[in-house]
Amino acid sequence: SRSLNLAVIPGDGIGQEVVAQGLKVLSAVLPQDVKLETKEYDFGAQRYHATGETLTDADLDALKQHDAILLGAIGDPSVPSGVLERGFLLKLRFAFDHHVNLRPSKLLPGVATPLAGQPEIDFVVVREGTEGPYTGNGGTIRKGTPQEVATEVSVNTAFGVERVVRDAFARAQARPRKKLTLVHKNNVLTFAGHLWTNIFTKVAEEFPDVTTDYIHVDAATIYLVTDPGRFDVIVTDNLFGDIITDLAAAVSGGIGVAASGNINPSGEFPSMFEPVHGSAPDIAGQGKADPSATVLSVALLLRHLGYETEAARIEEAVSADLAERVGKPARSTNEIGDALAVRVAG
Amino acid sequence: SRSLNLAVIPGDGIGQEVVAQGLKVLSAVLPQDVKLETKEYDFGAQRYHATGETLTDADLDALKQHDAILLGAIGDPSVPSGVLERGFLLKLRFAFDHHVNLRPSKLLPGVATPLAGQPEIDFVVVREGTEGPYTGNGGTIRKGTPQEVATEVSVNTAFGVERVVRDAFARAQARPRKKLTLVHKNNVLTFAGHLWTNIFTKVAEEFPDVTTDYIHVDAATIYLVTDPGRFDVIVTDNLFGDIITDLAAAVSGGIGVAASGNINPSGEFPSMFEPVHGSAPDIAGQGKADPSATVLSVALLLRHLGYETEAARIEEAVSADLAERVGKPARSTNEIGDALAVRVAG
Ligand SMILES: CC(C)[C@H](C(=O)O)[C@@H](O)C(=O)O
Ligand SMILES: CC(C)[C@H](C(=O)O)[C@@H](O)C(=O)O
Repeated sequence: SRSLNLAVIPGDGIGQEVVAQGLKVLSAVLPQDVKLETKEYDFGAQRYHATGETLTDADLDALKQHDAILLGAIGDPSVPSGVLERGFLLKLRFAFDHHVNLRPSKLLPGVATPLAGQPEIDFVVVREGTEGPYTGNGGTIRKGTPQEVATEVSVNTAFGVERVVRDAFARAQARPRKKLTLVHKNNVLTFAGHLWTNIFTKVAEEFPDVTTDYIHVDAATIYLVTDPGRFDVIVTDNLFGDIITDLAAAVSGGIGVAASGNINPSGEFPSMFEPVHGSAPDIAGQGKADPSATVLSVALLLRHLGYETEAARIEEAVSADLAERVGKPARSTNEIGDALAVRVAG
Repeated sequence: SRSLNLAVIPGDGIGQEVVAQGLKVLSAVLPQDVKLETKEYDFGAQRYHATGETLTDADLDALKQHDAILLGAIGDPSVPSGVLERGFLLKLRFAFDHHVNLRPSKLLPGVATPLAGQPEIDFVVVREGTEGPYTGNGGTIRKGTPQEVATEVSVNTAFGVERVVRDAFARAQARPRKKLTLVHKNNVLTFAGHLWTNIFTKVAEEFPDVTTDYIHVDAATIYLVTDPGRFDVIVTDNLFGDIITDLAAAVSGGIGVAASGNINPSGEFPSMFEPVHGSAPDIAGQGKADPSATVLSVALLLRHLGYETEAARIEEAVSADLAERVGKPARSTNEIGDALAVRVAG
């Protein structure tokens, strides 16, 4: 019999509520012969306040034992900006070499979008996850004085760029439209820009059936609102990916339905799946959060572990549930989770 | 009698066509007693191909003699990406210390927006223009090998941040809503983030009547499509400003109407005014380009030089012209310019 050994990190704010629904749907969808084991971890603001710790070496050793990680949300206004982000979220992405940050954007039928005319949207952003200005490289001199200088260094390596570009080409090749767009700013960030562009061009030769395209990041934001249908797969660096995936989420149904995977493709370390949204402390504990993004992240998790049928069943359930919501009074976090669990089991 | 001594840089692609309309409207709006002198400069792709030059020291000396600069667009597919951007556009911004990059976004009545529900949009982005990752700092080692490493350094100084933040506070204070939003990514780019946030907080004390707000750049792209009305004045760094102003242009009528000023507030060097759009080689020479963005850039130029009445007249003319276009067949670049010249003179 098979088993799925999951690390669960509810985290802060609405994290607890949405993760509970994710697990509910996961239990309902898993085949009978798969033994689901979960272990909950208490990372986030509370642990930080109690112990000063965000993520220790012992924590990393424990997390390493799991097949995958499901995360709700990390972040709280009581903790200074950057502490949990750098000390937990980014530390984990770097420690487990989550270099493929996968963020699908699909506007499902009936789902509200801020864009006029309900355009067709169905693309995936492959965001690099371990380089760029996220490395923590840089520093400050003469802090707090009128002569302060602060730098942030974007680090880009051929090794790091090539592996994520190759992953994105493979994903594009597996989709019907087979189109890959590189998003960068190679006319200004010419050092990193040349590296990304050259590697993109070189790897393209291995994928002659994939159509390629290049767009500057600033222009990409225009297309995301005027012509999002032009995108199939996008590959981009860590910071540009952060920015355009929030915009992508906004136009394709909002962060209530935006899922993401922080993937280590080799499987050397467990991959982590989380909704794109944050901890939303303003609505925490009120049963108002939409768990769909977390449930869709569970689908990405299942697909990553080879449960393709189950992943597709979850995606169909969420799509049907969203279509059914139109014009109805809002349901609670728990009610949505229940409805999805019924659908995937049925 | 007064005089206005203008450097005119038509540049590449549609630059020539739109600048001609800008000058037409400028001539029509200027008071009789102002002597307008213009000198045209041939920067851009042609000059680069003929001489290898983009912007020489002698060019800078010549440009320095003018009261202001009007630019159409620079950039052509025949020139490698980055050459004209770094060698001309950015070189000029840096040489003339254009540290306030002003980009207003106003959705005018009747103008099409990709957003549903025709929201109210009226804000200004104050983008820093001489620091951040635009400094050209960084480099490449082991170029072209599997061991290549390319870095891009974002440089942020207290001096540079404080002057642009103070400028933005003053602009916010002069507007009815008096609200200033700092856009950054201080939870990840913590060195630069602290500098920006601390200076923003410090300068805020001098402007107690200005309401302040902070938003991460990724979340800002969400608000720009879901709730653009929340913004009044935004201050941000060079790269974030580049990205969000293209998105801002897209939601508030498109790059056909987005104007910008590269401003040296002290007046030590002439400021430069240009449409946000590029040279659009695909439609160059066909009379299809909308000159409104250039004409609105002329309004910013006039306001900068103290011609407030004339600037407002141009803005009203463009607004009226855009409202009149609704449901009518498209007019040529020249026809729009003629119509605007008639309106501002009337
Ligand atoms: C919270 C923050 C560190 C994170 C990021 O910038 O990557 C978030 O915005 C995201 O997109 O997952
Ligand atoms: C052409 C390019 C150098 C420029 C920039 O990045 O600043 C442009 O995108 C702009 O916004 O003016």
